[in-house]
Amino acid sequence: MKEAMDSATFVSMLRASISHWREQGKKGVWIKLPIELVNLVEPAVAEGFWYHHAEPKYLMLVYWIPQSAHTIPANASHRVSVGVVVMNEKDELLVVQEKTGTFGGTGVWKFPTGVVDEGEDICAAAVREIKEETGIDAEFVEVLAFRQSHRMFFQKSGLFFVCLARPLSFDIWKQDSEIEAAQWMPFQEYAKQPYCQKTEVVQYVIEICSAKKNGKYSGFAPVPTTSSFSDQKSYLYLDSHFRRRQACLGLTEASGVSMTEPSLPVSYASSRVELLCEKSCCFLHVESLIKIQSAYLLSQSLGKSNMAKKLQQIIRYDLMGNLNSVPCGSL
Amino acid sequence: MKEAMDSATFVSMLRASISHWREQGKKGVWIKLPIELVNLVEPAVAEGFWYHHAEPKYLMLVYWIPQSAHTIPANASHRVSVGVVVMNEKDELLVVQEKTGTFGGTGVWKFPTGVVDEGEDICAAAVREIKEETGIDAEFVEVLAFRQSHRMFFQKSGLFFVCLARPLSFDIWKQDSEIEAAQWMPFQEYAKQPYCQKTEVVQYVIEICSAKKNGKYSGFAPVPTTSSFSDQKSYLYLDSHFRRRQACLGLTEASGVSMTEPSLPVSYASSRVELLCEKSCCFLHVESLIKIQSAYLLSQSLGKSNMAKKLQQIIRYDLMGNLNSVPCGSL
Repeated sequence: MKEAMDSATFVSMLRASISHWREQGKKGVWIKLPIELVNLVEPAVAEGFWYHHAEPKYLMLVYWIPQSAHTIPANASHRVSVGVVVMNEKDELLVVQEKTGTFGGTGVWKFPTGVVDEGEDICAAAVREIKEETGIDAEFVEVLAFRQSHRMFFQKSGLFFVCLARPLSFDIWKQDSEIEAAQWMPFQEYAKQPYCQKTEVVQYVIEICSAKKNGKYSGFAPVPTTSSFSDQKSYLYLDSHFRRRQACLGLTEASGVSMTEPSLPVSYASSRVELLCEKSCCFLHVESLIKIQSAYLLSQSLGKSNMAKKLQQIIRYDLMGNLNSVPCGSL
Repeated sequence: MKEAMDSATFVSMLRASISHWREQGKKGVWIKLPIELVNLVEPAVAEGFWYHHAEPKYLMLVYWIPQSAHTIPANASHRVSVGVVVMNEKDELLVVQEKTGTFGGTGVWKFPTGVVDEGEDICAAAVREIKEETGIDAEFVEVLAFRQSHRMFFQKSGLFFVCLARPLSFDIWKQDSEIEAAQWMPFQEYAKQPYCQKTEVVQYVIEICSAKKNGKYSGFAPVPTTSSFSDQKSYLYLDSHFRRRQACLGLTEASGVSMTEPSLPVSYASSRVELLCEKSCCFLHVESLIKIQSAYLLSQSLGKSNMAKKLQQIIRYDLMGNLNSVPCGSL
């Protein structure tokens, strides 16, 4: 509804419409009342409508015509938030102390965290929160784990996604309104905090980070996909190791190079590997990483063990998101 | 607020309270109005309050005293739903045809799907939906992937979790109200459906299932955890391969058997392995699986390659959640 009207007119219209809809066999009736039409809320409820949901500018009411139990879908039930693990090449974590909230004044150093905005992608929210709280530019790597909790906020549930991001800058400019302090802290120092020691879920995250550093953990990486419902791209988050194998395979198929191709000219393969090693000194995008990985498989299948070893180093680095910091020396 | 009052009394009380809170330097003011007090909604809005959120039985209004921009947290932003992959030992998928909704009358065979109820765990919702739609009892295995979409339902976002469950019963009793038909369908036949062929996100799920069958995919498995905020257990979902390695390690440490222990008495280890192989003929819980896995590592470290091979078979089966159907013959 848009235009203003007095409640008497509204009620007579409403009754007429509902009896009409009843004849048509309609079931659920929705009324979306802009906050300007707040005068019509009371009469609607008097007619048997109840609240479905509300946003700052409107109230949605609903009514079920049949005698049967209604099948009206529930309102949004979850708030989504992120916590982001950002580690530099020195095994230092990006951590902050919050001014307010649960951690305000506790002196606890924690990962940057925040609520995912309406309509915002989890991977975008992670990068935004890092920038807002610490001024650090970062690239999203993957979701390491997530936690579902109930009766959090107005009885709603919460989904908290623990994310991994790769730092693209290193100088901290902390935000003053919410953040007391921010720093790069040695991983072990972070883990030693009494809060971390006594909080079970944080212990899991610390174990996950350790495993990740050793390439022994696979999170969920985002891939843009379309569904049958809309052409709008939305992210599917899936096993990052699986995704890379897929992508790696795709690349080698595309480039006409098969991993198992025995007749592969050595010269071609090795020159390609050299090229990739040069590349690895600068910042590498995922595509480049995939090339590195296929090069690694190639160099292995060609028995070029030294080259394979170097490339493996690079891939290892990437597992903690520090690929951009691989020094030329390490090649 | 609880007790009924006329709007004049309400407004005078409200104005007095707000001027008092302003002096105290308070910022946000919340009013939770039960639907019985709907008469007070219009006056509250007239006083400058706006809607925050609503549930069937109440409306929450909010007001910001300072001139500054408000920092009132947003309402729940996401609806959470699940789709469940249930595969039996014959590589058949549990699929349904829906009577209504997007797929009503399309003849498309799809996985059981549904909305996660308020306060319900994702893993519980997956098992519930399978039971409701097909009558099949199942055990949750892991989250294979998840997808975040925007502007789905009243402009809210959606999180869709693709889950894997292990069937515990096999006779289908379809639900009549929402389900047109239900059956066990060969995996390849499901994948060949035009809808599956032309829908990118479904293609991903099919690839994931294929990889999972071959033990080349790691989803997120739930572990109950506590946080510093509450003692209430809530599930953390993390890399299932990682989780099993952890659990396996824990078990061997608990049992005093170290994987790398060279002085391990062969007799002890092998007898333990025999015991576990017997167990594997009946339905195995995760704990038993972990024992099987440690037994597998033991038998390997002891060079008992036949035993290792048998145990690996069992673990392979489990990766598609069919451990309970391992025939004694396969041992």
